[in-house]
Amino acid sequence: MIRKGTTSAVELRRLIRAGEWKQTTTGLVPGFVQANLVMLPKEQAFHFLLFCVRNPKPCPILDVLEPGQFEPSIARGADLRTDLPKYRIYEKGELRKEVEEVKDFFHEGMVSFLLGCSFSFESAMLASGLPIRNIEEGKNVSMYVTSRRCVSAGPFSSPLVVSMRPLTPQQAVRAIQVTTRFHLTHGAPVHFGSPEEIGIKNLNRPEFGDPVTLRQGEIPVFWACGVTSALAATSARLPLVITHAPGHMFVSDLKDEDLTIL
Amino acid sequence: MIRKGTTSAVELRRLIRAGEWKQTTTGLVPGFVQANLVMLPKEQAFHFLLFCVRNPKPCPILDVLEPGQFEPSIARGADLRTDLPKYRIYEKGELRKEVEEVKDFFHEGMVSFLLGCSFSFESAMLASGLPIRNIEEGKNVSMYVTSRRCVSAGPFSSPLVVSMRPLTPQQAVRAIQVTTRFHLTHGAPVHFGSPEEIGIKNLNRPEFGDPVTLRQGEIPVFWACGVTSALAATSARLPLVITHAPGHMFVSDLKDEDLTIL
Repeated sequence: MIRKGTTSAVELRRLIRAGEWKQTTTGLVPGFVQANLVMLPKEQAFHFLLFCVRNPKPCPILDVLEPGQFEPSIARGADLRTDLPKYRIYEKGELRKEVEEVKDFFHEGMVSFLLGCSFSFESAMLASGLPIRNIEEGKNVSMYVTSRRCVSAGPFSSPLVVSMRPLTPQQAVRAIQVTTRFHLTHGAPVHFGSPEEIGIKNLNRPEFGDPVTLRQGEIPVFWACGVTSALAATSARLPLVITHAPGHMFVSDLKDEDLTIL
Repeated sequence: MIRKGTTSAVELRRLIRAGEWKQTTTGLVPGFVQANLVMLPKEQAFHFLLFCVRNPKPCPILDVLEPGQFEPSIARGADLRTDLPKYRIYEKGELRKEVEEVKDFFHEGMVSFLLGCSFSFESAMLASGLPIRNIEEGKNVSMYVTSRRCVSAGPFSSPLVVSMRPLTPQQAVRAIQVTTRFHLTHGAPVHFGSPEEIGIKNLNRPEFGDPVTLRQGEIPVFWACGVTSALAATSARLPLVITHAPGHMFVSDLKDEDLTIL
């Protein structure tokens, strides 16, 4: 159980490592930056890093470790093999299992990537008085696979995945301003308005997460989503890819404000 | 000779490729983004890309090509082996020669990196009515090796190199605003005021470029400088590294405004 006094990322990671917290990290230790994790063999590390560099909005790079290393620079003392509540193991692009630590899978030839996630800018939107419908409704954010292609790199390719939050036009203007500051956690929206224009047929049927209510006068606003990185990593059908399980992120020592550009 | 009608990057690259322009690209085809070039063996490409990702202010990534490729995405039809006026060839970290094209050196196992340079934000500073002393005095910008270390990656390490422009405090405030928009061409300054604080002993003795006049009431303002990338690339003493010769940049089809974040 997360104790009432758990207010630091260090303490949360200690609990996770001890097996005392196995659920999602959504909403935990607010203000600390949470990250997507991808681990893959060093032979493909250049091309995966290149994929991220070429697609910075869905795959903003927070930290990349040397082969075999598991202590990130954005959380000294942490161990990426044990400090996330749940991981996914992929073999040849297929999901094989979910596990609570990956010491038996991670090896000297593996490179770890930590990529920004939208929790950081959601806090900033809330602080600006903007609504986050999925939080209001106690759901996961709605995520969709679009018809837009990311720029490929070597064996890695993926459609752009987006998350959606309903806003009035006036709120959308403010949300664009607020999220622009967070270029390391997806930054400004990639689209708003017509879902069809980016290949989304039915807003009520997200590929990931839950559908949320779109109210009268609201338009859907779409941000690039970190799920893109998992699709890209598994697209190459490598012998082994490890990712976090959805919602079970790595919680770093960075504060949200460390990621802003202005 | 550059003809009076040479106003596009495509035309300038054609002249360079034909051997009709062999001098620096400083001030040519204003508004088009110019870039630092580094080419090195693919075995070290992951770690060099990682060095750039870890040090985005001195080494902002504009384009990285697949091994063996020489047509960048930011200038379709261009050839990085021939379209710069002058190149430097390094073997085991030592400068071996300067050449006008590198078809005889570049091979299938080489990866090309294009990194942002400060020409883009200088145009924006001038447009805002800010002085660029080195341009006023017809000199190269002053560049200094600082006591700050970049974050290393694999075999690549380097001190941070900075460029300096004298400004009044009021001008410096405006310059910070203006250059913040250009995060892909070094962004906001890394320091202003006391040169000693970053290990610069004598402003009149820059390691690269020329000294410029610091007038009464002005302070030195320091920006991260792309020369850092050449020092890092040659620090690893690889069998072969190719860079542009100083001031002889690659001129892309990107416009300065394409690089802004706001």
